Amino acid sequence: MSNRQVVIASLPKGAISVTDFELREGLMPEPGEGEVRCRTIAITMGAGQRAGLQGSASYAGAPIAGVVMGGPGVAEVEVSNDPSLRPGDRVLAPTGWQEHSVHAARSVQRIEGDDDPALHLGVLGTNGLTAYFGLLDVGRPNAGETVVVSAASGSVGHLVGQIARIRGCRTVGVAGSDEKCAMLTDRLRFDAAVNHRDPDFRGAFKSAVQGAGGGIDVYFDNTGGDILGAALRAMRPHGRIVCCGVVSQYDTSEPAPGPRGIPGLLVNNRVRMEGFLVFDYAPRYAEARAALRAWIASGELQPLVDEVVGLERAPDAFVDLLAGGNIGTRVVRVGA
Amino acid sequence: MSNRQVVIASLPKGAISVTDFELREGLMPEPGEGEVRCRTIAITMGAGQRAGLQGSASYAGAPIAGVVMGGPGVAEVEVSNDPSLRPGDRVLAPTGWQEHSVHAARSVQRIEGDDDPALHLGVLGTNGLTAYFGLLDVGRPNAGETVVVSAASGSVGHLVGQIARIRGCRTVGVAGSDEKCAMLTDRLRFDAAVNHRDPDFRGAFKSAVQGAGGGIDVYFDNTGGDILGAALRAMRPHGRIVCCGVVSQYDTSEPAPGPRGIPGLLVNNRVRMEGFLVFDYAPRYAEARAALRAWIASGELQPLVDEVVGLERAPDAFVDLLAGGNIGTRVVRVGA
Repeated sequence: MSNRQVVIASLPKGAISVTDFELREGLMPEPGEGEVRCRTIAITMGAGQRAGLQGSASYAGAPIAGVVMGGPGVAEVEVSNDPSLRPGDRVLAPTGWQEHSVHAARSVQRIEGDDDPALHLGVLGTNGLTAYFGLLDVGRPNAGETVVVSAASGSVGHLVGQIARIRGCRTVGVAGSDEKCAMLTDRLRFDAAVNHRDPDFRGAFKSAVQGAGGGIDVYFDNTGGDILGAALRAMRPHGRIVCCGVVSQYDTSEPAPGPRGIPGLLVNNRVRMEGFLVFDYAPRYAEARAALRAWIASGELQPLVDEVVGLERAPDAFVDLLAGGNIGTRVVRVGA
Repeated sequence: MSNRQVVIASLPKGAISVTDFELREGLMPEPGEGEVRCRTIAITMGAGQRAGLQGSASYAGAPIAGVVMGGPGVAEVEVSNDPSLRPGDRVLAPTGWQEHSVHAARSVQRIEGDDDPALHLGVLGTNGLTAYFGLLDVGRPNAGETVVVSAASGSVGHLVGQIARIRGCRTVGVAGSDEKCAMLTDRLRFDAAVNHRDPDFRGAFKSAVQGAGGGIDVYFDNTGGDILGAALRAMRPHGRIVCCGVVSQYDTSEPAPGPRGIPGLLVNNRVRMEGFLVFDYAPRYAEARAALRAWIASGELQPLVDEVVGLERAPDAFVDLLAGGNIGTRVVRVGA
């Protein structure tokens, strides 16, 4: 029996390409004592994983050439050498981009019920938890405030804007095409959306965020770069910038300088800018998942999934994701 | 009767010079109903005032050519048209750089007792309050943590490091000469000090901050620029950067780009970076002054004053301050 895998063929120089990955037939792994072997059903991928491929330290770790590309997945237990799990159980696991993987039983998480696996990889997984804790705990928006999110049609962003709306905020999304912007306002009920590829982006951004009279209270930053620069200039006094990701800087080997006006603008407007990692909130995941499920059930929150079928298409899906090709959580179906 | 004044002759282009100021004989101002006229005893000045002279918005406002240079002072009431103040009372007031000024009685603050006026312009004035609230409320240091402060021998910095030491922190100062560094460790009992003009500043900084094993918990930033850049790279997880001032960027018309790694480094280390203005803490000034007075009385806190005599020397004193010439609070004595 073989195990199809996508491995990192080389650490990318400059923009990533599908040739930085390689499909290979690996050995079927055998679980030891206390371990399980899982068959991957679906994996998900995020722009943050590109940072790890820059070879320097990042929260995503530093993958190296020749190893299986990492990432979370939903899988079915095939063989269990631990009493806590049985064949047929479905689990969330760091499967990586491969058909079969072995894990310590305590390092996977059993999924109850028969939800669509995509739900656990998206809104109930890292993306949804990141949106929930980043917006509510770090950003702390109050009803009536203006919340702006970048990469607003992306895996985290489309949830951030909706949660802000649910909490009574005015929501503005920044996205990379007019189609995405229309989707945000028409389908997800953002109050406004701005295309950052618009030649007059700064002007359009300014009118959108100042529409309700006065600028940004919470900016949820998934991109860094120029959009962060524009937001910094539009923050209201005591505004908060939630630093979640830096997608504008991932797909390169030469990160740009930081935005002008740091730290002067933070002083003038008494702005708080704070980075966070969702893993620090693990003790409160259950609280967040309960809230997210309730909002989905009531129809207030629409999680979007952007599905690709076939492990062999994972490299393409990742390169496309970094170019902004996805809407919502990108999921690659590996098996049934 | 005349009123000697220092006026802004021109908004400086590039580095400021004494020729951007002019000494003139103004008219003696007459107080109206509810107003007082004050005779200036001493003024103080801070690097932040340079920002206002850049002509763009800053927390210091935007002075314009031809007006008296602004700034806080200690003064004696000469004429009072308000029952709350009497001739001979001493007050803190926004006197500006002049011998006599008129104020609404409610916009000045009576000083009780016969303290040295310099005390009210320094450690009990904006500098001390800024150090107190910035460090304790924004930075929130815990005993045993490492606190780093830039412009550490300056008006705010020399107090920040001492308050951190009083609170049981390991304290590291960054200053602009070996003499200043020696003063910080020998006289003010900082644990370490680093000269940012040292050719191997980055290396020296790294060893100083990692001496206690692990990097910076709180960085109190008075400078921005390269020192902020070095600190960003040395922050421990969940570290805090208190954005107080940007002295590296004040004396120029072309502010530099922000430090590299914003916002990526904030995310990786979950760092909070927060700007503040001391005026927001006005309701708690009494609490801070009581604590500062107690520390001075016990000998734990040594406020330093750097005095210049004569209003006509104010422009020189300001240009010198921006070049790092002062140790502690710079005070210009105007009258007895």
